[in-house]
Amino acid sequence: MRVDGQLKETIHWIAEGQVETIDQRSLPHQFVLETLRSGSDACKAIQEMHVRGAPLIGITAAYGLYLEACLLGESLAQDRGFNQLEKMAEALKATRPTAVNLAWAVNRVMERVRECHSAERQNLQIEKCSIDSQASRIAKNYRYLLLQEAEKLRQRELDHCRQIGEHGLSLIHWLWEKKGKQTVNLLTHCNAGWLACVDYGTATAPFYAAYDQNIPIHVWVDETRPRNQGASLTAWELGQHGVPHTLIVDNVGGHLMQHGMVDMVIVGADRVTRRGDVANKIGTYLKALAAKDNNIPFYVALPSSTFDLTLDDGLREIPIEERDGHEVSHIPGRSERGIEEVRISPATTPCRNYGFDVSPARLITGFITERGLCEANEASIRTLFPEL
Amino acid sequence: MRVDGQLKETIHWIAEGQVETIDQRSLPHQFVLETLRSGSDACKAIQEMHVRGAPLIGITAAYGLYLEACLLGESLAQDRGFNQLEKMAEALKATRPTAVNLAWAVNRVMERVRECHSAERQNLQIEKCSIDSQASRIAKNYRYLLLQEAEKLRQRELDHCRQIGEHGLSLIHWLWEKKGKQTVNLLTHCNAGWLACVDYGTATAPFYAAYDQNIPIHVWVDETRPRNQGASLTAWELGQHGVPHTLIVDNVGGHLMQHGMVDMVIVGADRVTRRGDVANKIGTYLKALAAKDNNIPFYVALPSSTFDLTLDDGLREIPIEERDGHEVSHIPGRSERGIEEVRISPATTPCRNYGFDVSPARLITGFITERGLCEANEASIRTLFPEL
Repeated sequence: MRVDGQLKETIHWIAEGQVETIDQRSLPHQFVLETLRSGSDACKAIQEMHVRGAPLIGITAAYGLYLEACLLGESLAQDRGFNQLEKMAEALKATRPTAVNLAWAVNRVMERVRECHSAERQNLQIEKCSIDSQASRIAKNYRYLLLQEAEKLRQRELDHCRQIGEHGLSLIHWLWEKKGKQTVNLLTHCNAGWLACVDYGTATAPFYAAYDQNIPIHVWVDETRPRNQGASLTAWELGQHGVPHTLIVDNVGGHLMQHGMVDMVIVGADRVTRRGDVANKIGTYLKALAAKDNNIPFYVALPSSTFDLTLDDGLREIPIEERDGHEVSHIPGRSERGIEEVRISPATTPCRNYGFDVSPARLITGFITERGLCEANEASIRTLFPEL
Repeated sequence: MRVDGQLKETIHWIAEGQVETIDQRSLPHQFVLETLRSGSDACKAIQEMHVRGAPLIGITAAYGLYLEACLLGESLAQDRGFNQLEKMAEALKATRPTAVNLAWAVNRVMERVRECHSAERQNLQIEKCSIDSQASRIAKNYRYLLLQEAEKLRQRELDHCRQIGEHGLSLIHWLWEKKGKQTVNLLTHCNAGWLACVDYGTATAPFYAAYDQNIPIHVWVDETRPRNQGASLTAWELGQHGVPHTLIVDNVGGHLMQHGMVDMVIVGADRVTRRGDVANKIGTYLKALAAKDNNIPFYVALPSSTFDLTLDDGLREIPIEERDGHEVSHIPGRSERGIEEVRISPATTPCRNYGFDVSPARLITGFITERGLCEANEASIRTLFPEL
């Protein structure tokens, strides 16, 4: 979407062994680009949340494998080198536990390169060549394959987000007609925006689609403590694109819903189980409860890569990341002197910092996916995605 | 309760025309005392939230009337002076709209002084004296009456909070027995602590009572955005008194309740209607929903001065204060350089800042009052308080 009037995306290849991302920690105060040059750079960018959002961390991890392959050079053709890549795949998967897209992307890419690796090994045996004589060609093949897979994933997420936008738009259009063409008030939590994906976003894709089609909308943006992704990212990206919005603290959504000031909630997801339980940013469950209590549609926008049909009961089975309490007690922002961090609690206060919660399927009106809408239950999900 | 090991209260008379309070804006970083010397000082302290909390703002307003009387001197005996006092009463009531205690305290004190005023006027007529000849005595009488009323209110709130603690303790004791004498996990929102009252607090009174009786408790403290009263006040006062607690962001409570990590919620209130609807700090409604969804007792602790039985439907009838959006976009805290404020959102982002919400009676397990427990309905409230 637009940044200072220019169209931007969150991640792209710039040269052999170099991938450019946005260091989102500096937003909204500065727009800082970052060049990743290794798998470790990708790990760090994911773990320290330079990049975040379920779709984007999956794609960053896929590029991370390619970058690692570039660093390994010819040694990638050898078992030792290939094992290094396998280790990097594990390291990338271990950076964050809750979003399933990360493991999904890494597994998918590694499967392809492993297939290629066994095929090459068989060829070498058949042709009775030494690895050394072919190392340069083989390693180059792997690098090419890894880059191709990362780019495919990137394009896939981009297409899926655009399609989510189109399907979500139909819901907003319906509400707009129903309201006699008055402004449709939407609420979102955290940042499931284009900054969390490649472009468009998941939850925000319908907002951008509606705005671009001149349907009058207004978005209530949950601040989203403790990391304030709503205040720093969603407010920023909606503002840059021109979408009318208002920032509120996380405590406010229920009050707005009680007073008819929200027509629909759309959030993203980090993992969705086969019964339709949704892991998403901490606090989503509270908004889902309020929407239910006030009979307001509560939709979850997600690409199919976010479904994890190996799990059933989200509350019992989805691992919830616990992060450092420092994120609760200290808040970064812009002071008169620049970017600084302030402590809001007594120095000795213990803090706990759970990153996600699970909204049970019974609270979800439906899913907005790249193939259209479905209900939050296994039958409905499998009707739309029989191959999963 | 204790501050640096010493017992403290939030407000007290120190000398003729001087009342000492704590400037709570500096907490938890500094413990700053403030001397109020006029009704305007009291207005400012309430409006700018040097003092806050439904019970404390009522008492501060009552002292504010006394301070204004001191400033007015002998002129208070004249109509012009008395009208000044009436104007100050209106100004004090207008400082904040949601908590009923404020208007309740001011009306109660003004009724007494008005009665006294008409009696004095009658006397002057009967005895055929001029006002001027008696002005000094009359004004002194009014001052004395106003101080006496403020002190009575102060003592009344103090006693009520202590009694709320005793009644709430019985609930905690029951949970502790039920859990096989394991630690009882409590959750509270905002600061309904001793800092919001004179001592003990309302929601915190049962915590202090349990702690002082060696019943093992642990309190989850909601940060309470946008003003962070949980992080800066509740965490501070529990820490100073030694009560085990953990600070969490407002988004976390639902997740904890889903996982059996909360045994009971106790919050305060700013106004309670006759059907039992509860206006309290914004975000309370979301916690009430989560407690209901997880079958966890949700209690509201309040002195009877917080009941407003003139109102029925809290959602429609209680005025909800809207404060400046700056409180959403900017967060004060301690940086390496001292107390500073940081901006967390883009400079141009519009913000809305609703201060309170209403939790419908159907979500409230019960009220903890100075006379004991009751249910959230008119019959039960009137059984306990037939005089209201």
